Amino acid sequence: MKISTLSRRSGVSIPTIKYYLRDGLLPHGLATATNQADYSEEHLRRLRLIRTLVEVRRLPVSAVKEILGAITEEGDLHQIFGIVIDARPATRHQEQARQEQAQGEARGVTDARRLITEMGWEVSPSTTAIQTLGEVLDALSAMDSHINWQSLLPYAQLTDRISELDVQQMNGVSGLLELAERAVLVSVLLEPALLALRRLAQEDKSARLFSGSRDEGRET
Amino acid sequence: MKISTLSRRSGVSIPTIKYYLRDGLLPHGLATATNQADYSEEHLRRLRLIRTLVEVRRLPVSAVKEILGAITEEGDLHQIFGIVIDARPATRHQEQARQEQAQGEARGVTDARRLITEMGWEVSPSTTAIQTLGEVLDALSAMDSHINWQSLLPYAQLTDRISELDVQQMNGVSGLLELAERAVLVSVLLEPALLALRRLAQEDKSARLFSGSRDEGRET
Repeated sequence: MKISTLSRRSGVSIPTIKYYLRDGLLPHGLATATNQADYSEEHLRRLRLIRTLVEVRRLPVSAVKEILGAITEEGDLHQIFGIVIDARPATRHQEQARQEQAQGEARGVTDARRLITEMGWEVSPSTTAIQTLGEVLDALSAMDSHINWQSLLPYAQLTDRISELDVQQMNGVSGLLELAERAVLVSVLLEPALLALRRLAQEDKSARLFSGSRDEGRET
Repeated sequence: MKISTLSRRSGVSIPTIKYYLRDGLLPHGLATATNQADYSEEHLRRLRLIRTLVEVRRLPVSAVKEILGAITEEGDLHQIFGIVIDARPATRHQEQARQEQAQGEARGVTDARRLITEMGWEVSPSTTAIQTLGEVLDALSAMDSHINWQSLLPYAQLTDRISELDVQQMNGVSGLLELAERAVLVSVLLEPALLALRRLAQEDKSARLFSGSRDEGRET
């Protein structure tokens, strides 16, 4: 197909496609004339994935290159998924530095690791999400909220079931480019949807339980 | 207590407390001398709530005033919860404008309302979360993802159970100021924790299912 067809079918403008070609993100098409090239369905799939990574995951071009490289060279979906959810296994150097720091690790991060052990989750010890979870646990503790890692266990069980739904969304998708695209959609684009669903469910529960509660010392 | 004690116990600096006093967010203490005032436990509770709303929910001072007003005047936890999760019931004027627009409403928002009906959730028709959910559904559709509002129903059922856990976190808390503070912590501060838990669970599922999958046409 011509670049104009590629642009129409991918929803990416011609100047942006040309930028990706110059930058090496998209391989050049087969030259058919001095200023014309032929693009394949493979180009279209790759371009759609680039678009998803840039627009949905909001990754910088350098990270998009890394993911495309992992797809081409490794062909390992777990690794691709890992890059998408920012769960890269640490290098040996980073791992050593982490172990040296572990003694002085923030309380919240230690608690986050306890929760992971309790759940039996197999994750890289340097996954970004552990830090995030640790920061929230520290903030909850600083606010005397009495919400700790144990209180989060029932939440962890429900999110575990959510992740099973996530993995089911990969069913029926074949080809690593398509699987990578689906992984981005499911793991990243569904995040605001899940938070929105939770707020709607909260509003519903709040309406049923708290509506018209004008008394200070409400019985619970 | 003196302003210095109030500052130490709340974790809010004296200049910031003075700013809240000038701005009317915090009522003045009982004057004990020309330049000294006595503050009560009630001042401390109110100040802690202000701190949570500003630091955790990142609300502008005007919105904090609105919530504090709702607590003082209405004493209605549902309304307070609604402000916290940005689920304010529309005014009659907004509601009219919404109904006039409804014909031309984006496809995603219509689908979001279908999901809400299917779930039997009682929510205000102008809740922000409906728009958010609609935008995600539109984006999923624009990307030919084959993920639609029906695919999100199992997610909605799990988030419904998460919201039941959320409501349980309000147990044992009495006093509207404390309940409002807890509502902010649970609904807002837990958001990054839930997303982090989902990413950890995804990484675990991905390790179990996809690790070492080097074949393009993986069977699912």
